Amino acid sequence: MFQKVLIANRGEIAVRVIRACRELGIRTVAVYSEADHDALHAELADEAICIGPAKAADSYLNVTQILSAALVTHAEAIHPGFGFLSENSRFASMCEELNLTFIGPKAATIDAMGNKINARQLMIEANVPVIPGSDGALTDVHEALTIAAEIGYPVMLKAAAGGGGKGIRKVLSAEELPQHFASAQQEAKAAFGNDEMYLEKIIYPARHIEVQILGDDFDNVIHLGERDCSLQRNNQKVLEESPSVVITEEKRQHLGQAAVRAAKAVGYRNAGTIEFLMDQAGAFYFMEMNTRIQVEHPITEMVTGVDLVKKQLEIASGEALNLTQEEIIMTGHAIECRINAENPAFNFAPSPGKIHNLFLPSGGLGLRVDSGMYSGYTIPPYYDSMIAKIIVHGETRFEALMKMQRALGELVTEGVTTNADFQMDLISHPQVIAGDYDTAFLQESFLPNWTPES
Amino acid sequence: MFQKVLIANRGEIAVRVIRACRELGIRTVAVYSEADHDALHAELADEAICIGPAKAADSYLNVTQILSAALVTHAEAIHPGFGFLSENSRFASMCEELNLTFIGPKAATIDAMGNKINARQLMIEANVPVIPGSDGALTDVHEALTIAAEIGYPVMLKAAAGGGGKGIRKVLSAEELPQHFASAQQEAKAAFGNDEMYLEKIIYPARHIEVQILGDDFDNVIHLGERDCSLQRNNQKVLEESPSVVITEEKRQHLGQAAVRAAKAVGYRNAGTIEFLMDQAGAFYFMEMNTRIQVEHPITEMVTGVDLVKKQLEIASGEALNLTQEEIIMTGHAIECRINAENPAFNFAPSPGKIHNLFLPSGGLGLRVDSGMYSGYTIPPYYDSMIAKIIVHGETRFEALMKMQRALGELVTEGVTTNADFQMDLISHPQVIAGDYDTAFLQESFLPNWTPES
Repeated sequence: MFQKVLIANRGEIAVRVIRACRELGIRTVAVYSEADHDALHAELADEAICIGPAKAADSYLNVTQILSAALVTHAEAIHPGFGFLSENSRFASMCEELNLTFIGPKAATIDAMGNKINARQLMIEANVPVIPGSDGALTDVHEALTIAAEIGYPVMLKAAAGGGGKGIRKVLSAEELPQHFASAQQEAKAAFGNDEMYLEKIIYPARHIEVQILGDDFDNVIHLGERDCSLQRNNQKVLEESPSVVITEEKRQHLGQAAVRAAKAVGYRNAGTIEFLMDQAGAFYFMEMNTRIQVEHPITEMVTGVDLVKKQLEIASGEALNLTQEEIIMTGHAIECRINAENPAFNFAPSPGKIHNLFLPSGGLGLRVDSGMYSGYTIPPYYDSMIAKIIVHGETRFEALMKMQRALGELVTEGVTTNADFQMDLISHPQVIAGDYDTAFLQESFLPNWTPES
Repeated sequence: MFQKVLIANRGEIAVRVIRACRELGIRTVAVYSEADHDALHAELADEAICIGPAKAADSYLNVTQILSAALVTHAEAIHPGFGFLSENSRFASMCEELNLTFIGPKAATIDAMGNKINARQLMIEANVPVIPGSDGALTDVHEALTIAAEIGYPVMLKAAAGGGGKGIRKVLSAEELPQHFASAQQEAKAAFGNDEMYLEKIIYPARHIEVQILGDDFDNVIHLGERDCSLQRNNQKVLEESPSVVITEEKRQHLGQAAVRAAKAVGYRNAGTIEFLMDQAGAFYFMEMNTRIQVEHPITEMVTGVDLVKKQLEIASGEALNLTQEEIIMTGHAIECRINAENPAFNFAPSPGKIHNLFLPSGGLGLRVDSGMYSGYTIPPYYDSMIAKIIVHGETRFEALMKMQRALGELVTEGVTTNADFQMDLISHPQVIAGDYDTAFLQESFLPNWTPES
């Protein structure tokens, strides 16, 4: 196992990784921006190094600074968390070149899955169902028009190198297509230096169902069941649960096997997630693979008892996966609510500032709060607004919902506005209680009828 | 299920019960003394009623005030927590008379187990091994001398109605016995109005092994495995773990069945604990039964997944136990450290005062902190000094120990001195790591060689 690991991230995921390292006897190096001098991750790590100004581009995305910090502190490995450099294959390659272990997949795997056209092709070859659309890159707008006519509107035009919502256009009709095609292509060229486009049918509303997998360097891949992340706002997950109420045991096996085939197709190593959409007829389509740990990983940990971050560390250190598929048993039901410093009454505008008094719910069986905050901490305005993840586990889904109500009711974040009341109303909605929701529900049905308490 | 429950306690156990009630949809009434106006249990409950001055005798032990509070608020049931009125059969009877459900065993059961001579006799009849000693009450000092000679010194002289260390004497030789007999008897008469005495062989050093049981009103009793509570100081448990490293699966079945027989012998209803001592040859002896929830109940919850407080509530509301013995499966390993506001450098003197800054460890898989504290809270000097229980659960005992180290390292309690460093040193001791300890270890081996950090 590693002696020392550098964590190239901030906030709760950096804290989460530091804690896992400590429990494995690994020393930790935190990196922090000038705005994060007082951040919990910098406090908790054995060593902490400032890597630049507040702006992420100058610090948490500053590859040279981060690699230098690793070399100076004699860290043997780098855990990238999620976001920032976690799916940056160039960073993964540079780590490899410097003899630093990148705690993630091989750089080639990130590339293979990062190019959406390529990933699509790989999935087709691995017999994983993909969303109806173009095979390979579109040669021009005429081909786009032909394929869109075949699969039917609306369709989504996407850049092969896409990400962060760039180079993507929803197209409602043939009339609109040429104009969107041109502008998306232009945007993709500017953002990624790559203007390859493809198109897919829009599966909406749908259930967003994703499968957690673990793979090692010895061709072992297992899945750890699904998460239902259909409750989203602007394509951001808001609340996740595992298992999904719409997945039968038979479907779980089917989906899990597809996820394992997908991972094996790219020789996957590390924790990873295969995201699927399930349409209203119950058919599944591969959406994308996230080649990193995810925000919502704790719900899978709660139902399986497997510590995914520790597994990442073990696998990266060269150990073979010490779990078989048969040993993965899902028990009970877990739910996660993301608590953000944001104001739902003002279109969820970020609400940074000082938390004068923080009281995180705790105690009892099956409650966990992953957070990078403490009482008196000032949330800087430069980064994402997530301040805590409340995760509950109950014998039944109902017990988990009741526990989440209890936990949300206890939360105190004096000084900053959060979405806690919004989450409380969401989990109290009859459709959420019934598990009867899809990717359209939150934005098209819940929010228009929701009034923040004044 | 109940609509409303009054919690006749304070501190973390009151908070624990309030949380369980809330998760079951039960409204809660807290009672608090004048010193506890700002206590967390009073904050968290739906209603809170002041029941008198700081002194426990005037508030938390004030039966009339507590019963009045229950009647005024239309509570249907009273949860006594542990300590205070939890093993007071008169209080249980008065609840029954007022048509309030006492969340505990029948008053007659408390009495049956509260009289130690009676309990001993019941255990013998139930074929549960007891510590060698007198059968029934000693008629006089001559009988005491005869029996002590038979079983061999040292022996323990005990009052039948004993509790709180009153009416109890360690006797090293026949010469000492008459004097101790007289003084213990006098003390018992004064304290309990009952001077019946008995004596038992001293089993020391030993392992303190206790078995958690659950019984209902329909003669169902199951056990939930053992806890090892051998790490004690002045007969106070300091650190507990489940399972015990010295208990084999065969022994667990054996012990569990003895515990179930013990509970059935008194028609036991509620969560309860049968405490045993295991001598160095591996023989077990019944010590006593605690007819209430215990401080260390969370470690059993962590390894079995059963919420014992919710079970108490379900059982008290008249539901039949919905668990069979076969469904109880112990998974992994759990450890609890009691964090007290006390100063180990000054003989563990209580250290009440204001916690200017409280940071409780959290996050990751398998960590739980049960506490009644918050940042800015002032610990009153009137009650026990426990401020938090840190409970960890790992796949292995080693993982649990590492997790506890991590958690203790994160704890911040600015303003008050705690035993956290002492606990850290204790769990880092080679004998504790090896599981090689007994009831003598902490006091006779660890403490004399321990130096507090200055």
